[in-house]
Amino acid sequence: MTAPGAEQDTAAPERGELHALVARLYPICRSITGDGVRRTLEIIAEQVPLEIHEVPTGTKVLDWTVPKEWNIRDAYIKDAAGRRVVDFAACNLHVVGYSVPVHRRMTLEELRPHLHTLPDRPDLVPYRTSYYHETWGFCLSADTLAALPEGEYEVCIDSTLADGHLTYGEHVVPGETADEVLISCHVCHPSLANDNLAAIAVATHLARRLAAGPRPRYTYRFLFAPGTIGAITWLARNRDRIERVRHGLVLACAGDRGPLTYKRSRRGDAPIDKAAAYVLRASGRPHTVVDFSPYGYDERQYCSPGFNLGVGSLTRTPYGRYPEYHTSGDDLDFVTEEAMRDTLETVWEILQVLERDRRYLNLSPYGEPQLGRRGLYDSLGGRSDTKQAQMAMLWVLNLSDGDHGLLDIAERSGLPFDVVADAARALCDATLLEPVKEC
Amino acid sequence: MTAPGAEQDTAAPERGELHALVARLYPICRSITGDGVRRTLEIIAEQVPLEIHEVPTGTKVLDWTVPKEWNIRDAYIKDAAGRRVVDFAACNLHVVGYSVPVHRRMTLEELRPHLHTLPDRPDLVPYRTSYYHETWGFCLSADTLAALPEGEYEVCIDSTLADGHLTYGEHVVPGETADEVLISCHVCHPSLANDNLAAIAVATHLARRLAAGPRPRYTYRFLFAPGTIGAITWLARNRDRIERVRHGLVLACAGDRGPLTYKRSRRGDAPIDKAAAYVLRASGRPHTVVDFSPYGYDERQYCSPGFNLGVGSLTRTPYGRYPEYHTSGDDLDFVTEEAMRDTLETVWEILQVLERDRRYLNLSPYGEPQLGRRGLYDSLGGRSDTKQAQMAMLWVLNLSDGDHGLLDIAERSGLPFDVVADAARALCDATLLEPVKEC
Amino acid sequence: MTAPGAEQDTAAPERGELHALVARLYPICRSITGDGVRRTLEIIAEQVPLEIHEVPTGTKVLDWTVPKEWNIRDAYIKDAAGRRVVDFAACNLHVVGYSVPVHRRMTLEELRPHLHTLPDRPDLVPYRTSYYHETWGFCLSADTLAALPEGEYEVCIDSTLADGHLTYGEHVVPGETADEVLISCHVCHPSLANDNLAAIAVATHLARRLAAGPRPRYTYRFLFAPGTIGAITWLARNRDRIERVRHGLVLACAGDRGPLTYKRSRRGDAPIDKAAAYVLRASGRPHTVVDFSPYGYDERQYCSPGFNLGVGSLTRTPYGRYPEYHTSGDDLDFVTEEAMRDTLETVWEILQVLERDRRYLNLSPYGEPQLGRRGLYDSLGGRSDTKQAQMAMLWVLNLSDGDHGLLDIAERSGLPFDVVADAARALCDATLLEPVKEC
Repeated sequence: MTAPGAEQDTAAPERGELHALVARLYPICRSITGDGVRRTLEIIAEQVPLEIHEVPTGTKVLDWTVPKEWNIRDAYIKDAAGRRVVDFAACNLHVVGYSVPVHRRMTLEELRPHLHTLPDRPDLVPYRTSYYHETWGFCLSADTLAALPEGEYEVCIDSTLADGHLTYGEHVVPGETADEVLISCHVCHPSLANDNLAAIAVATHLARRLAAGPRPRYTYRFLFAPGTIGAITWLARNRDRIERVRHGLVLACAGDRGPLTYKRSRRGDAPIDKAAAYVLRASGRPHTVVDFSPYGYDERQYCSPGFNLGVGSLTRTPYGRYPEYHTSGDDLDFVTEEAMRDTLETVWEILQVLERDRRYLNLSPYGEPQLGRRGLYDSLGGRSDTKQAQMAMLWVLNLSDGDHGLLDIAERSGLPFDVVADAARALCDATLLEPVKEC
Repeated sequence: MTAPGAEQDTAAPERGELHALVARLYPICRSITGDGVRRTLEIIAEQVPLEIHEVPTGTKVLDWTVPKEWNIRDAYIKDAAGRRVVDFAACNLHVVGYSVPVHRRMTLEELRPHLHTLPDRPDLVPYRTSYYHETWGFCLSADTLAALPEGEYEVCIDSTLADGHLTYGEHVVPGETADEVLISCHVCHPSLANDNLAAIAVATHLARRLAAGPRPRYTYRFLFAPGTIGAITWLARNRDRIERVRHGLVLACAGDRGPLTYKRSRRGDAPIDKAAAYVLRASGRPHTVVDFSPYGYDERQYCSPGFNLGVGSLTRTPYGRYPEYHTSGDDLDFVTEEAMRDTLETVWEILQVLERDRRYLNLSPYGEPQLGRRGLYDSLGGRSDTKQAQMAMLWVLNLSDGDHGLLDIAERSGLPFDVVADAARALCDATLLEPVKEC
Repeated sequence: MTAPGAEQDTAAPERGELHALVARLYPICRSITGDGVRRTLEIIAEQVPLEIHEVPTGTKVLDWTVPKEWNIRDAYIKDAAGRRVVDFAACNLHVVGYSVPVHRRMTLEELRPHLHTLPDRPDLVPYRTSYYHETWGFCLSADTLAALPEGEYEVCIDSTLADGHLTYGEHVVPGETADEVLISCHVCHPSLANDNLAAIAVATHLARRLAAGPRPRYTYRFLFAPGTIGAITWLARNRDRIERVRHGLVLACAGDRGPLTYKRSRRGDAPIDKAAAYVLRASGRPHTVVDFSPYGYDERQYCSPGFNLGVGSLTRTPYGRYPEYHTSGDDLDFVTEEAMRDTLETVWEILQVLERDRRYLNLSPYGEPQLGRRGLYDSLGGRSDTKQAQMAMLWVLNLSDGDHGLLDIAERSGLPFDVVADAARALCDATLLEPVKEC
């Protein structure tokens, strides 16, 4: 791929920097609204400037309504001896997200319907939420529950569910054109490292790297927003911008040790789909490419039929496919610096293909133009070991009829994309080629 | 598949009823015209009302002309001792269909050109016809022929070939729309159980089952007509109705012990083609799906390029692929109640898919609609074991852009068709979906 | 395939005739211009009349300019003893094509930059050219070079590079229509038998065979021209004729012992592509079919995006895939009469398919027409061994809706092309079919 040269050296994350960012964000109790999201965005903003949006409770956004804001200070279950047997301060997964406040004494029997465990993984605390149905609950390990004696307990959730705001942040790297690439990741999960702090770290450092380099062709918009309602809110407030979104990637589960998985956009053959498949294949990395399905992360919203954007999703192990998914097992040990850097590098390479990929028009389409006269072709004929660069020029000239882009040409010729893109540049310099005007 | 519920219990054939109908029809000597067809239609009409059509000899039908009517009372070959060595009364295959009358004495040598046998299957009597070339002949087993001594024989065919009529019957199950599904089977073969009495029995009981249930979406037209000339006559007399035929099935060879074979329409991707392939695959039954070819049964006529209807053909073992085909071996033992019921059930399932399959429009296509508010989605988030019904709703919403039908959605999602169709119904009830107006 | 009957007997090459023509052309020193090309065309013209074109140096042709004309009389390297250690008279590959004149004494050290060898094949003399960059050089075997002692040598190339002409020849076999089939082969290589004297011999005898038969449907244009610049010159001078070129074949490497390789046109599904693939597959010959690439012979020019003609390329072993390629190993022993005749026969069969392939319209498209009435169908029904010819008629009738050609029908039905084409003729005779008017 394109050797990004100097700018990479400047902006590349220090060894350990990605994991350090994850570790800093990990303890914060995030949800789809509230101070956890605000604090998270503040920390991201230390790395890249963010525009923060606050959208009031009750705002109509597409088919949805911005919910009340939820904040929580403390929560526990105390046994008869006053000991905290379940403690929010030790692990914020213990409270069902959006739990309404409660403070009372009740028997274990009365409490049970409010307790969530994972019988199959008795050592892990599950992650549960109840955003749109007012209730309260606790999550705990099945082992902990099994150890609780019958009797009376003091139950307390010191939370607030009240009118307030939904918060999200945007960072924009301006490009030569107003056409946008959207990089989106959800910021609504509490202490879950892979889902989605790793992707937040990758996106943050990707933004830095882009900003540190030469002005890109596309404008890059980074969206840090709560899942579902955040993406829906952004879509609702950016209806006029959406048609500018040419390509996009939802980043999630970016830090586990598994191989990469690219999930195609609903279109299935959007440029991002082709670029991602190409980069993964060309890299030789083990990987999987799967078709779109209307379940997963915010690609569900971007790829709803009314928008139908060319937005794919890149993860390592997909949601639900690892036992630690949505449990206390998704912790700081579950994600690695190396995996996050590999994800970051892959996204970078995909974006480099999108940056360079375009359709050109051969300005001398009748017969081959005389490349030798222009210094683009070996002067000594008869040899059979024609160089890759010359072959790339012949392919670019032959297929640049306005219907084929450079990535198509790379795929068809079997030549590396960068060699093809370099050939196109040389042919443009020789005024044998010009970019097709995109409408 | 759809559990057809109460109506199935009412209209389901009694154990043995299909085979009993075949057995009743078996002895009748049918041909493309004549009293054998009339008697056959009378017996069918005991089960489902039939409209009988009589089309006079000489009527121009497309490129053809309705031929003279043929009837036969008796036929035999008597040896010198006056014994019937070949006897029409014992097996109506013995006479070449449409044989002109003959009564004379001739040597075996003179008779030979009029005798047809199957040297490869010396125990079987072949089935032969000569509809459009006036001649006469006998069919007999090669063993019988080998046993005949030289000498003189009395040859008699007491038949009539004279102006008359071609007869066919129709049964219509009215539906909510004038769009029709055509179920067609040929009624012109004499004592051949699989070809085509089994299909007649399946079609008859299918008609009863449809009529006993709630009014279907489509109007179902059952055609019991002689092969080729019958279908051509029907097509010629129904030119204005043909454009209403949305789907169709030619049923034949419906009772042998082999697995099912579906032969695609000439279009290759008509809805019936997709529905049949889906049902066969989903059923787990061993089966074969083959491309259209212009040979076989009356799909040849319905799929001629001028009509090009979406008519496929369902058989068990296809014509010519079993040694008993068009011989006295295709008898009552060759077909089974179980096979016919399996064919009937398969056709029923295909029709249920056609009934429910249609394209819908997502009325809230920008982002996902909030299903939870409408009671269509689990209130507790975070779990990874989302239910099939919820997944079906997401798929239906995502792909209901007017281009995809429910069967397409089932194929793409891997979800059962009925789950997808139920999801569509639930979404319609929630006014999130509406059927695309078919033009 | 079509038995070409009497005309084949008349025009078929005598045993050994193809190889004899190659042997006669072999010693001539050809290049992209000059007397070698003229002499070559004179010899071809002994077999088929040629129209000779002389295009002056400096003529603008598409993006190119006709170069100076090159002629050579003698060349050598003499050692100190005056012995010719490299001698053009012994092998015309010894001189780099288009070498400017030189005559001087120089040390081996000074000479080395002008010497070309093949270290991997030390016994062979390479073939090198320098058409558009004025230089001079010698080609010799690595063994010869290794044996040369240091010291002074006399170097002489007695050549002329001066204003003159580029020469090419055309032969036309007139057809019933002005639509053309272009058969093109390059005539610019010196003593290389397979590349391209074998193809010249095949093309010459193909032209004789076509001219000896009945007037074909297409007009056949045979082009004998220098590679690249010759094709470009022809294209530049025939801009108004090019749209008449319906099909074309570039012939090269037609005489080695390897199996045939067909390279598709840039379109990939042009009629020639389908016909060649069909003939090769149907023949049972081992063969390869490869996609177009913008490297090879003059298909590069015919398939440049501005022209995008339906021109494929037929070779035996493709360029660069045999060790003798562009070396003195490509000699008279490397090509065989048998291989050339096999190439010729294959091209002939491809052309026969193109001649007969067309789209027809069923004039009786509603239902099957009654073939029996017209004597086109067996009168005795009931048999399952329907003949191939009858099946072909049913297929032709069924698919002749204007969208399918006869080759499509042969492919889809699995019937031999000639049987299908004969069926179409019979149906035309019965006025059931008529050719689609090509626009």
